[in-house]
Amino acid sequence: MKKSLGTATLLAPTPVWLVGAYDASGRANAAVIAWGGICCSKPPCVAISLRAATMTHGNIMARRAFTVNIPSEELIAQADYFGIVSGRDVDKFAATGLTAVKSELVDAPYIAEFPLVVECVVLQVVELGLHTQFVGEIKDIKADEAVLAEGGGLDVGKLRPVAFAPSARTYHGLTTSIGPAFSVGRCYAAKKQ
Amino acid sequence: MKKSLGTATLLAPTPVWLVGAYDASGRANAAVIAWGGICCSKPPCVAISLRAATMTHGNIMARRAFTVNIPSEELIAQADYFGIVSGRDVDKFAATGLTAVKSELVDAPYIAEFPLVVECVVLQVVELGLHTQFVGEIKDIKADEAVLAEGGGLDVGKLRPVAFAPSARTYHGLTTSIGPAFSVGRCYAAKKQ
Repeated sequence: MKKSLGTATLLAPTPVWLVGAYDASGRANAAVIAWGGICCSKPPCVAISLRAATMTHGNIMARRAFTVNIPSEELIAQADYFGIVSGRDVDKFAATGLTAVKSELVDAPYIAEFPLVVECVVLQVVELGLHTQFVGEIKDIKADEAVLAEGGGLDVGKLRPVAFAPSARTYHGLTTSIGPAFSVGRCYAAKKQ
Repeated sequence: MKKSLGTATLLAPTPVWLVGAYDASGRANAAVIAWGGICCSKPPCVAISLRAATMTHGNIMARRAFTVNIPSEELIAQADYFGIVSGRDVDKFAATGLTAVKSELVDAPYIAEFPLVVECVVLQVVELGLHTQFVGEIKDIKADEAVLAEGGGLDVGKLRPVAFAPSARTYHGLTTSIGPAFSVGRCYAAKKQ
């Protein structure tokens, strides 16, 4: 017998990503988000949701571009700070010592110290209620050498991305792999034969 | 100097959720997805993306409802199986021994053995390309007693949800908390004073 928890947004895990955008004067700002995810493979797209009241919402509406910056576990305090204050009140980059770099591909800044950055142009704006969902088409993904595998691909064990648990409002790292996708479930296919 | 990885969908972490829906004959089916996330707080909404070629895509288009079923780590092999085969070829519930339960709130089945289930009606359908994004308004969340904290709320340490790393196509558990949100970053606010 399951117990009803009502209609809260308790699904897990969610990502912890920083969304970078420029304001009208060209000043770099970023917001931390947990409401978002990959949403399409072709074209490759990522969706991020923001309240209309936020500075980043207005910035993206005006510039039609943003970056998604993925922190490693070591950067969680800096990332968290971006969700505590508003860019209207403080320069978050100055406060944290992080560096905003102008993307050469899209009209948005990315964060130099973050090991994985994703450059996006706005493909769709979906008004949902308290949050607006921005669907960004991925124009490039850039990674630090330190998070690459020997063959050149991304190594998630080196990236060490952070997950968020909305129920407890806690950040979590990822464990080592508990199994390969499209593989650990093959035992059930075998049972059919 | 960052290295370009191109335009692949390499963001992490993503969730591992099973999306349940009925086919035209009323047979329960489910698909495992990693392209999705929470997208709005009011109304509470979750977005999941599916290719038009999938059975679940057609089922949701017809019934305008779905469930999101969150596996614990112990259920990862069963969950993975749902992404290996198509419901057009096999009865995934019969093969895995999982139980489909008819939701009393929405026209979709949820998975009895999964510790957290989310019942949704389709609020928006967003065509993006290879994937269609279904935005579901959350009508209820139901949890097993085993994943509840003493106070009655959800305990993510008991839920043990699974994350997916698209780069390596591997499943991962979550570590214990590495910090509370809206808190671990306060050190940077203090520096300003």
